[in-house]
Amino acid sequence: MPSRRQGLLIVYTGEGKGKTTAALGLLLRAWGRGMRVCTIQFIKAETGNWGEVRAAKKLGLEWHKMGDGFTHRSRDPETTAAKARQGWQLAQEKIASGAYDLVFLDEFTYPLHFGWLATEAVVDWLKHHKPPHTHVVITGRYAPQALLEAADLATEMCKIKHPYDQGIRAQPGIEF
Amino acid sequence: MPSRRQGLLIVYTGEGKGKTTAALGLLLRAWGRGMRVCTIQFIKAETGNWGEVRAAKKLGLEWHKMGDGFTHRSRDPETTAAKARQGWQLAQEKIASGAYDLVFLDEFTYPLHFGWLATEAVVDWLKHHKPPHTHVVITGRYAPQALLEAADLATEMCKIKHPYDQGIRAQPGIEF
Repeated sequence: MPSRRQGLLIVYTGEGKGKTTAALGLLLRAWGRGMRVCTIQFIKAETGNWGEVRAAKKLGLEWHKMGDGFTHRSRDPETTAAKARQGWQLAQEKIASGAYDLVFLDEFTYPLHFGWLATEAVVDWLKHHKPPHTHVVITGRYAPQALLEAADLATEMCKIKHPYDQGIRAQPGIEF
Repeated sequence: MPSRRQGLLIVYTGEGKGKTTAALGLLLRAWGRGMRVCTIQFIKAETGNWGEVRAAKKLGLEWHKMGDGFTHRSRDPETTAAKARQGWQLAQEKIASGAYDLVFLDEFTYPLHFGWLATEAVVDWLKHHKPPHTHVVITGRYAPQALLEAADLATEMCKIKHPYDQGIRAQPGIEF
């Protein structure tokens, strides 16, 4: 086996619940070990004050919200895409700095899926610039095949049951 | 739609990585909202000092380790099964007390799967005794069908890629 410490590229994708949630669990576990972590949220609006954002503030975790709350349904697609590209620029700086043990790119699959960023270029950049000790965690539906191929750990969250299908609204502290 | 606040029965199962991790994310999110949370770990040994246990200590979260590190390969199956039954007794007390917003039963599917506890009796108890506001989160492979049927939210973590298959050891801060 190769050396024990190795920064992984981790992808949580799929239709099921638990993708961002699992990444939050990684943040908590890493924080528990005194590791340095950084989150960049794509898509989600800057104004959101979700449970995870409140927790991050309470823990003093570095947290950047780079989205405007829209995906492909944006009324201003160019601004939405530009925000995603800004987010990726920031992600590159954070990852390449080597200052973090774990960098979490929440919902980063969408800018790739919608073509706001070129998947091949992103995967290639990660291959050449991610420091060996840095874990990078990427979440979101529709993870492109090239990203999954580059990943060390990839899980598809497969939906068995969603509360929404049974008429139950999203619950604070659980889904946001 | 029914009332907004509703305690869910949540199950994360499957072969893929991210089950316990997602439940940790729920704990973090709930903690971020000032909710009262309690974890009971089945299976995992009392002596383990994983990243999540360290994080829980740092956050002051209530955390009970009720396992001896063994499942069906236990050299002392009766003791292992008895520990699981003690864990369930404690879980019942905690859930029925109504004092918690979220009770997390880590790897609780195994005592059901291995028959140390009767699934029907457990599901029936949850249906009748879980307070309406309390979320219960259950993780582990092999979730029995009756448990999935009773769940409000169920996700199967489907394996796409595990680092271990590529000769990469479990990484601290990520997998434990």
